[in-house]
Amino acid sequence: MTVLDRETLHASLQDPALESIGFLNEIMGCYPDAISFAPGAPHPDPYTELDATRYLDRFLAHAAAESGRTPVQAGRLLYEYGPARGLINGIVADALRRDQGIDVAPESVVITVGAQEAMLLTLRALASSPRDLLAVSDPCFVGITSAAGLLGVGVVPVTDTAEGLDVDALAEACRTARRANRRIRACYVAPDYANPSGSRMELRNRRRLLELAEQEDFLILEDNAYGFTAVPGTELPALKTLDTGRRVVHIGTFAKVCFPGARVGYAIADQDVRTARGSTVPLAAELARLKTAVTVNTSPVCQALIAGMLLEHGGSLAELSRARSALYQRNLTHLLEALDRHTVAGLPDGVEWNRPGGGFFVRMRLPVPVDAALLEASAADYGVLWTPMAPFHPGGGGTHSLRLSCSYLDPERIDEGVRRLVTFLRAKISGATGGGVDGRTDGRTAAVVRR
Amino acid sequence: MTVLDRETLHASLQDPALESIGFLNEIMGCYPDAISFAPGAPHPDPYTELDATRYLDRFLAHAAAESGRTPVQAGRLLYEYGPARGLINGIVADALRRDQGIDVAPESVVITVGAQEAMLLTLRALASSPRDLLAVSDPCFVGITSAAGLLGVGVVPVTDTAEGLDVDALAEACRTARRANRRIRACYVAPDYANPSGSRMELRNRRRLLELAEQEDFLILEDNAYGFTAVPGTELPALKTLDTGRRVVHIGTFAKVCFPGARVGYAIADQDVRTARGSTVPLAAELARLKTAVTVNTSPVCQALIAGMLLEHGGSLAELSRARSALYQRNLTHLLEALDRHTVAGLPDGVEWNRPGGGFFVRMRLPVPVDAALLEASAADYGVLWTPMAPFHPGGGGTHSLRLSCSYLDPERIDEGVRRLVTFLRAKISGATGGGVDGRTDGRTAAVVRR
Repeated sequence: MTVLDRETLHASLQDPALESIGFLNEIMGCYPDAISFAPGAPHPDPYTELDATRYLDRFLAHAAAESGRTPVQAGRLLYEYGPARGLINGIVADALRRDQGIDVAPESVVITVGAQEAMLLTLRALASSPRDLLAVSDPCFVGITSAAGLLGVGVVPVTDTAEGLDVDALAEACRTARRANRRIRACYVAPDYANPSGSRMELRNRRRLLELAEQEDFLILEDNAYGFTAVPGTELPALKTLDTGRRVVHIGTFAKVCFPGARVGYAIADQDVRTARGSTVPLAAELARLKTAVTVNTSPVCQALIAGMLLEHGGSLAELSRARSALYQRNLTHLLEALDRHTVAGLPDGVEWNRPGGGFFVRMRLPVPVDAALLEASAADYGVLWTPMAPFHPGGGGTHSLRLSCSYLDPERIDEGVRRLVTFLRAKISGATGGGVDGRTDGRTAAVVRR
Repeated sequence: MTVLDRETLHASLQDPALESIGFLNEIMGCYPDAISFAPGAPHPDPYTELDATRYLDRFLAHAAAESGRTPVQAGRLLYEYGPARGLINGIVADALRRDQGIDVAPESVVITVGAQEAMLLTLRALASSPRDLLAVSDPCFVGITSAAGLLGVGVVPVTDTAEGLDVDALAEACRTARRANRRIRACYVAPDYANPSGSRMELRNRRRLLELAEQEDFLILEDNAYGFTAVPGTELPALKTLDTGRRVVHIGTFAKVCFPGARVGYAIADQDVRTARGSTVPLAAELARLKTAVTVNTSPVCQALIAGMLLEHGGSLAELSRARSALYQRNLTHLLEALDRHTVAGLPDGVEWNRPGGGFFVRMRLPVPVDAALLEASAADYGVLWTPMAPFHPGGGGTHSLRLSCSYLDPERIDEGVRRLVTFLRAKISGATGGGVDGRTDGRTAAVVRR
């Protein structure tokens, strides 16, 4: 009987970050009644408004009206293979122009199976030699580091500060790479309320990053997943909006503003690629070519769902984004206020957290190591879950930090979760300055039984 | 303005096979009125029976009945992220047991974005060092060689004969690799009416391949895309059905029996993987871990469409497969009979083709080189398209062969296409033994204008 040792499988399967996520999932499965600040999933409330049939009908009516297709011909679009680059590129390009001032032709858009595939394709296209390195903000979304691991691309961590990526540190990383006969080929950054740090890149910092990309000849992979959560009126322009030199590949997702189950994302890649024959194609066309080796194409049914939803809102995500932003702002404010209330009552010394202006995440620093044992104790004895930060730190940091996600909880669950968390912190961390009871004696949390 | 030379992008973008496919797509775009034997797309007739809404409802009713979910909770399944391994694994495992005698637990199934993603994930998991090679049938489906290219995995071509993969040649390839301090880690094979060769592996050959895999310690990637096209009663057991040693990862797709637009495929990977901590997980679980770096998960909407369709047919694909098989058998018979009729009337010497018992494809050998110029002449002057075989030959052969696909045409179009093809062959190949007119003088084909 065939038995394979994991050590004989690809190295990316031994990635400690993947291991940690596996452990986290296991813990969540074991304590289904715990209040979980762990997953960064969207809130389910908007799902009740969704109507897949209506969106499909809307898209099909549009496809018929636009091209003179009969209803049967339009219907076929859902069932056939479609082009690798996508079916709704024009609709997406229009929305980006309206909503974010990103002005690109449909040919510069490739529709992907979520932002994840867009990241994988872009990284694959750009990293052509073992010399090529990917700089990433540190801490960093594990999706990009796991894609790099799968492709065997070396990762260079660059410190993320409260104002976003440290551009000076990135400049230094470029010089260090060059001295080692390597080069930073691309830099991944999520400028708006990044997962997991919650930080946002200041406008001045955005401009400096674009300048450095020009000077050092690298491309920027901009992940725009959380831009929509800004308080209306406080948005900063996307890197792509500022990108006069076409240094930015802008990666987006419809998972959070529309819904995750469609698995539709995109890359905006308007860089010119010169072929051997001297003709020029947009980088998006090259990404589409690579896509034939990954997923062939993004389900036209899924694309139609998203396009139908966009068309229903005048070809814009602005209205939906505002509604979602209000929901996540409510949750984030609730989380921060709950933490503040407990601070007044006393929290252990050295427990600190940041105060992001948007996004799904708050980062908390503890005076003790944040490891699997601590997480298991928190889940088993206090009925509250969160995510250790270490797996998000390719540079090896984050050993004393955790991430709190408030995206899919309701306010009363956030309150109760914070109560449990604070009880846990007081019990587990010596030097607590306030009162509070040990959650073990609390009937509500003691009811959480490992199954 | 950023301009990238294609030579500075990843090597897989310079793959001549990808180039050829790009050229083929371009040609098809230029001659939309040509009759095309090029794309291996499924026939559109069954699409008129499809009803996405009904399938979704069917799946949701099942999900509610099985788990005690309320309709709202069940509905959420479509909109949320789901598990990376998939949502419908049990339904798929049941169908494989009923339909093909492949008896595996749902935990050994991973649902993927088409068979393409299943191939990519399996290859990524198995090829862990530059020493590891992938053996492929030669000629071979470009999806697997392009996945190998994207991952930088070396490919060893092994001759495909009329009885399928040459197992002796594969044994020799294993020895050669070993002498070079490398190893054949896996072998890709489509045993049933392969794309593009149309060949089928004999039962004895299947057993020999399984024995060799055991002896030489490699895994088999079985691509089962065309098994369903066999004449009922003539099916041979899948390699996975015969796989007592768990040497086979069985890769399937719902694109052809259900519909392509769902982009749902799967890998059956029941090999035991031993982790560092000594526990054991199925290889499918490792593939699901890798999937988090590629597409995160397969759209639950798409999975629900396929599951609904399966449930509507008693959890089996047998009835649908029979209906589709009849359609493709009709087309294949029609193509072969049309070619036979023209043979009687006289065809140039040295024009030969095979006579597959199923599948979508017939392979034709010409006494002249089959290149881009010949294809363009065929399209421009005779209004008929086909696929040059060379891109399917990683070993460099196929320079004088073309592939005819009959899957998505109707019988009258097949007749007319063969008439055009024969006219073209008579005109272009010296030594024609029969009459026939040059298509250039034929009003019907002359109407094909390059746009």
